[in-house]
Amino acid sequence: MSEEIGGRLDPTDWSRPVVGVLGGLGPAATSVFLDVLIRATAARSDQEHVDLLVSQHSTTPDRTAGILEPGAPDPGPVIVRDAVMLERAGVDLLVLPCNTAHHYARQVEAATTVPLLSIVETTARTAVESAAGAPIAVFATEGNIHAEVYQEAIAAQGGTSLVPDRALQDDINHLIYGQVKAGAPVDLDLFDSCIDRALEQGASTAVLGCTELSVVYDQHGYRGDARLVDSLTELARITVRQAGKELTELFR
Amino acid sequence: MSEEIGGRLDPTDWSRPVVGVLGGLGPAATSVFLDVLIRATAARSDQEHVDLLVSQHSTTPDRTAGILEPGAPDPGPVIVRDAVMLERAGVDLLVLPCNTAHHYARQVEAATTVPLLSIVETTARTAVESAAGAPIAVFATEGNIHAEVYQEAIAAQGGTSLVPDRALQDDINHLIYGQVKAGAPVDLDLFDSCIDRALEQGASTAVLGCTELSVVYDQHGYRGDARLVDSLTELARITVRQAGKELTELFR
Repeated sequence: MSEEIGGRLDPTDWSRPVVGVLGGLGPAATSVFLDVLIRATAARSDQEHVDLLVSQHSTTPDRTAGILEPGAPDPGPVIVRDAVMLERAGVDLLVLPCNTAHHYARQVEAATTVPLLSIVETTARTAVESAAGAPIAVFATEGNIHAEVYQEAIAAQGGTSLVPDRALQDDINHLIYGQVKAGAPVDLDLFDSCIDRALEQGASTAVLGCTELSVVYDQHGYRGDARLVDSLTELARITVRQAGKELTELFR
Repeated sequence: MSEEIGGRLDPTDWSRPVVGVLGGLGPAATSVFLDVLIRATAARSDQEHVDLLVSQHSTTPDRTAGILEPGAPDPGPVIVRDAVMLERAGVDLLVLPCNTAHHYARQVEAATTVPLLSIVETTARTAVESAAGAPIAVFATEGNIHAEVYQEAIAAQGGTSLVPDRALQDDINHLIYGQVKAGAPVDLDLFDSCIDRALEQGASTAVLGCTELSVVYDQHGYRGDARLVDSLTELARITVRQAGKELTELFR
């Protein structure tokens, strides 16, 4: 018998599938994902919720810097090692509740045999269905836009993306970094104006491809707004379904 | 070299101390704990937050049933196995964001060498300091009251506890099970009435010794109310301090 030198879920205790959450990217996005996942799951008791193992790895190097700045610390190998750790611990599925970090999804998939439910693919699929041929505005970080994470995923589903112009991107950056990440009050007039301008520029739908914007969507009454497809909501929906649970009415 | 058969945190990637969270008891309490912990941590970037490994083990058997009902499934061994799993994965501290499950804390401490930061001890300590000799009302589940979790901890700190009478406990049960756990709107008049009656019965302070009540405290404007000592807040405060971080102004 080999010595057990790492932590493994006890297979007799945990309900399958156990979902591994590559978290901390950032920590607030993971916390909001867990909250949205709970509210998306039709459950009459604690025991009817999904079992998860969550690596809330807040000190993972910054993803946007890793993509945009030569010589910045590379978060890729860190995320891959956490994915391998969760796989060895016994999870059956992986999720990565961060759109920008999705840039590293292929590295994760190459290093593990556990399926990774993609926040970007599932969001792009819903957006392309919802847009019915019209352009889809991508609201995301500079790093995400630069890496063409959503543009590629939308194209792969047969859709057309609309990248915000400089002024609109600057306002989106301000909402993400200057307000939500900074813990400052959110300027909802600015958020509304961003949506309006994207629609004026020809989009029928805006993808909220950044979990900071998912926080605005969730906490300021945008849930159900037909112009928006929220990435964290889409990830929660696919996670609930893949875990064999039912969605609550608000998330169907 | 022995074969690695379990998941271990990579010690070169993670910032010490890594906090292991025995979660899912219930899942919403863990989600709120992560959110409160983030807001309690003075951090200018994602990377200044605490690193955590979280077992969101929603299907752990019900704790109140385990304490009160003969023959009900025993959550104790499940919680112990998860604690051992987190220890083997490499966490440096453990927290258990559930007051009722604290009944099983001694079993966890006997099975692991990693320190368990006690939600009950830290809350009782703050309450006894705050009460300055006056009785402390215990707002908690029936299982918690029956197991005398808070009564013992308050006595150990030299304080006096006040156990709610039947009518008050019934209203507390209704807030916990009929409203927060059920996802129903919270009757704040009822919550205010519970506090008022505890004070009329001689208490100077009420301990919110149930994370469902911590949700009411957090989300309905009770933070800073000098009559209340909230257990989830106290656990977040001690976790931030033990992790070597500074508290934000609201949590000092």
